[in-house]
Amino acid sequence: MIKFFVLTIFPRIIECYAEFGILRQAIRKGLAHVEAVDIRKYAHKGQVDDTAYGGLPGMVLKPEPIFEAYEDVVRKHGKPFVLITEPWGRNIDQRFLEELSHRERIMVICGRYEGIDERVKSIVDEEVSLGDFVLSGGELVALTVIDGVVRLLPGALSEPMSLEEDSYRNRWLGYPVYTKPREFKGMKVPEILLSGNHKLIELWKLWHRIENTLKKRPDLIPQNLTPEEREILENIKKGMSFEEWVKRFKSPS
Amino acid sequence: MIKFFVLTIFPRIIECYAEFGILRQAIRKGLAHVEAVDIRKYAHKGQVDDTAYGGLPGMVLKPEPIFEAYEDVVRKHGKPFVLITEPWGRNIDQRFLEELSHRERIMVICGRYEGIDERVKSIVDEEVSLGDFVLSGGELVALTVIDGVVRLLPGALSEPMSLEEDSYRNRWLGYPVYTKPREFKGMKVPEILLSGNHKLIELWKLWHRIENTLKKRPDLIPQNLTPEEREILENIKKGMSFEEWVKRFKSPS
Repeated sequence: MIKFFVLTIFPRIIECYAEFGILRQAIRKGLAHVEAVDIRKYAHKGQVDDTAYGGLPGMVLKPEPIFEAYEDVVRKHGKPFVLITEPWGRNIDQRFLEELSHRERIMVICGRYEGIDERVKSIVDEEVSLGDFVLSGGELVALTVIDGVVRLLPGALSEPMSLEEDSYRNRWLGYPVYTKPREFKGMKVPEILLSGNHKLIELWKLWHRIENTLKKRPDLIPQNLTPEEREILENIKKGMSFEEWVKRFKSPS
Repeated sequence: MIKFFVLTIFPRIIECYAEFGILRQAIRKGLAHVEAVDIRKYAHKGQVDDTAYGGLPGMVLKPEPIFEAYEDVVRKHGKPFVLITEPWGRNIDQRFLEELSHRERIMVICGRYEGIDERVKSIVDEEVSLGDFVLSGGELVALTVIDGVVRLLPGALSEPMSLEEDSYRNRWLGYPVYTKPREFKGMKVPEILLSGNHKLIELWKLWHRIENTLKKRPDLIPQNLTPEEREILENIKKGMSFEEWVKRFKSPS
């Protein structure tokens, strides 16, 4: 079981998110433990922040309550791997989430945009971020880490094959998906998906994965293409459609 | 007032987040309206998803409930700018949030990792993402957009000067901040911040902004440096400390 500890002044945000979806299921199955640690409970008279030395608009989170909360977790559960949210931290990506999924205990200290006393960094293993922008606090970063990690745990998804279909795990991005009805507001499900021809359907999916990647994230095109992938990629670049390609493919020229 | 509409199967996640911090204040001040639209309410017998044509593990969100929810919002409030969450969407950054902050109505359609029927894309203006990884749903992306946009609205922050101190708005990343106590577990607040010498304190902040940027995000170093910034940057590269620099600076050599 992986254990998450989120040090925050808004524990309800964390608890509420954990009441839904895959995270809720994972907790019920005993795969994950998610604990929102209210740093206010560790603060003298509940005062978690104070003015900044040297002058700064806004308040800075004090070091003592965070250390006390941290030490309490260490005492009860053992030392966690400690993340803190900072706008310039390591960007979360799929590889980082997979690394984290092998840890036993992860703590996320939620920053506030005004800042956290620098001395807290002495217990931090890594600074993390969602990108080049500023949020009012780190709770959404913490939940992103938890959600992204938990769905990788064996048994977390009811359809484990889903993982293999993921963008960023598969070599290519996803393809367009369709469900009922067959026609909606004049827009039809592509014929091939209704054909029952599994080989053709797999080719269609691969074609659209490659097309999606080429159009939206050409930087992600893998180096080592299979002959089939190379042929598809070149035909897409020429402006060919899947239907044209398949027709040529089948015709006895 | 900016209006957000989040189409989701977990409206409580959105509502709960809106009960705290700056977002709660902005809603109370009448600066923002945040509405979680439960797509289940627009679904026939509450069925929001169905199996994928062509075979796919997991379920795909159906188009009809999403369209009906969208049309209901359009009828009541006017056409929104529509975002959908996709792992390969446009990465959120500070510029994107500032662009969005000038819109009147923003809708975020929350994807599920298995997918949304492709025909929903016909009402979508932009695909958005938090990075190269997969989450179980789009709710955290929606909340990131809302939080990041709302704090930019005039009047949202109780200390509007805070915005100017932000990483990504300032030319440089942030500097270390400290609050009481002056000494904690043997770690002291830097003397200069206690000195009351404002000119020196401003130089200290600039030095540490530049040092932080050089160490953590050298790609963000601006092209057009002031003579002062250039001097600091070169001295940091030489391995000089702020204290040494200031000493030389002051000594009458």
